[in-house]
Amino acid sequence: MPSDLWLPLAKKMVETIDGLDWCVFGKNGSDVTSYAITLARVYTGKMDILLARGSYHGSHFWCQPHGQGVPEEWKTHVHYFEYNDAEDFRRVWAEHQGTVAGVVLTPHRHDAMRDQELPKPEFVEAVNSLARKDGFMVIIDDVRCGFRLDIAGSSKHYGWKADIQCFGKAMANGYAISVAGARRELMEAAKTIFFTGTHFFSGVPFAAALACIDEIRASSAIEHIRRMGTMFMNGLADAAAAAGVKVSVTGPPAMPYMTFADDPLFETNRFFCGEAARRGIFLHPHHNWFVCAAMQEADIQKTLDVASVCFKLTREKIGG
Amino acid sequence: MPSDLWLPLAKKMVETIDGLDWCVFGKNGSDVTSYAITLARVYTGKMDILLARGSYHGSHFWCQPHGQGVPEEWKTHVHYFEYNDAEDFRRVWAEHQGTVAGVVLTPHRHDAMRDQELPKPEFVEAVNSLARKDGFMVIIDDVRCGFRLDIAGSSKHYGWKADIQCFGKAMANGYAISVAGARRELMEAAKTIFFTGTHFFSGVPFAAALACIDEIRASSAIEHIRRMGTMFMNGLADAAAAAGVKVSVTGPPAMPYMTFADDPLFETNRFFCGEAARRGIFLHPHHNWFVCAAMQEADIQKTLDVASVCFKLTREKIGG
Repeated sequence: MPSDLWLPLAKKMVETIDGLDWCVFGKNGSDVTSYAITLARVYTGKMDILLARGSYHGSHFWCQPHGQGVPEEWKTHVHYFEYNDAEDFRRVWAEHQGTVAGVVLTPHRHDAMRDQELPKPEFVEAVNSLARKDGFMVIIDDVRCGFRLDIAGSSKHYGWKADIQCFGKAMANGYAISVAGARRELMEAAKTIFFTGTHFFSGVPFAAALACIDEIRASSAIEHIRRMGTMFMNGLADAAAAAGVKVSVTGPPAMPYMTFADDPLFETNRFFCGEAARRGIFLHPHHNWFVCAAMQEADIQKTLDVASVCFKLTREKIGG
Repeated sequence: MPSDLWLPLAKKMVETIDGLDWCVFGKNGSDVTSYAITLARVYTGKMDILLARGSYHGSHFWCQPHGQGVPEEWKTHVHYFEYNDAEDFRRVWAEHQGTVAGVVLTPHRHDAMRDQELPKPEFVEAVNSLARKDGFMVIIDDVRCGFRLDIAGSSKHYGWKADIQCFGKAMANGYAISVAGARRELMEAAKTIFFTGTHFFSGVPFAAALACIDEIRASSAIEHIRRMGTMFMNGLADAAAAAGVKVSVTGPPAMPYMTFADDPLFETNRFFCGEAARRGIFLHPHHNWFVCAAMQEADIQKTLDVASVCFKLTREKIGG
């Protein structure tokens, strides 16, 4: 049911997130990434959107190049570059110079089925400066990372000069709410955009988000997550080394991921994660993981103990 | 957080809704109407979708012809006919014969800013029989009407032979969940469709939907709503007549709407609804209303008492 928490949450978001002067609310990540590209288009009067190849921004037609049942022309006006490759970004921009409305980027690279990559400072600088020069919008899709790396947003954490930012997931501890917001200058453009949906006005997720954001701050959850994640990533690397298994542990401590060397089809990873699941620990073989505020040292240690056993089993399976 | 309620709710939906053999879950109406057209496309191998002009099926790019910031080619493959006009439906179908994947219809016509219309039996029959003959899918967007007119779905209520059905809103009493489901034959096609989203797996809305559907049945909520709505619609018509104001009260009793004669810009309706709001009754001047299970005779009577006062004020304002 609707409530009077809409405005308090909007104020909370604007107070909390760096560079956010106003915002709208949706239910899931796709709602707000689709809103963000529309806002960039209306504000700039241009239509082309640049996306990093392999980055995930939702399941709407425009951002699922692999989807079945989507007409080809419903995927137009979207052009792909390589994440963290400033030269490739400039090349794709130059090919569409004059028609680029915005670039959509995850704060760091957390595509499924590959090692995570933190954004290279020269890539961040290239995007920031070209956007300022050309007038296209920097849209940071902080749906997955938001409220995990920095309470003020992952754009601040990594140095993105975001014009438009999207949040979801962690902000209401699982209650269905998502947010897109932007700088003050984009507010007029927003007035012409059609954006609504079933359940968008339900009060419960607004209350959950307000409580959750306050609790993240009061409990220093982000610092705790960073400590637990660091303990986990270091322990995981040590346990793999002790078992003689080569792994790559990547990502910020709040959201680690691990791959095995010479494992292009993730068969070794599925074996490892399957053995861990049998022992009560859920790790995903294809998707990055999340450390949450409820996890304590004993939980991390238990996870590392199980991982040690599973690394030994993996070593036996794949050989030396 | 994910829970083990996914399968129980899927079973509950299949047991409850007529003609539904399986289903998927989203968060809002647009999620599932977009899924539905994709399913129709993959199943039929065709791309064109027929829509009733003015009907609302969500805020995604393909179904918002009035939206700003959407490239023209992102609105292709969608063709419009007049609701309740069998001849016009056949004409638009014939123009695209051979490429029609499906037709999307609300159970009855409940577009904003116009009187509601119940579906004419000959229109229902024309759509049902042409779909069977040509092999395109009948997609019923029951997001707004579902769980208000018939526990088994509004398709059953009105006689639509639905291949794909979409639900949301009332099914979980405001918790964010939506559903698309179909006949068994479409299950294989569904396996190739990419469909997911932030919060899609949260457990709370699944628990809410399970509880709500059980409660609707146990409390005979739909019959109660019909009685209350009938009392409201009859009383409203009587009160308008008594005040000498010409109105049109339309829709099924569960979701009435009222317009004034000679009020093309809804100025009279906004005056009437504004006066009602001052007296504690919220009525929408542009959008159909909903009777809910919590409303009792005393609530309806209070609403009618306020309406009587407001009809008199309206009569004074607009003259005889």
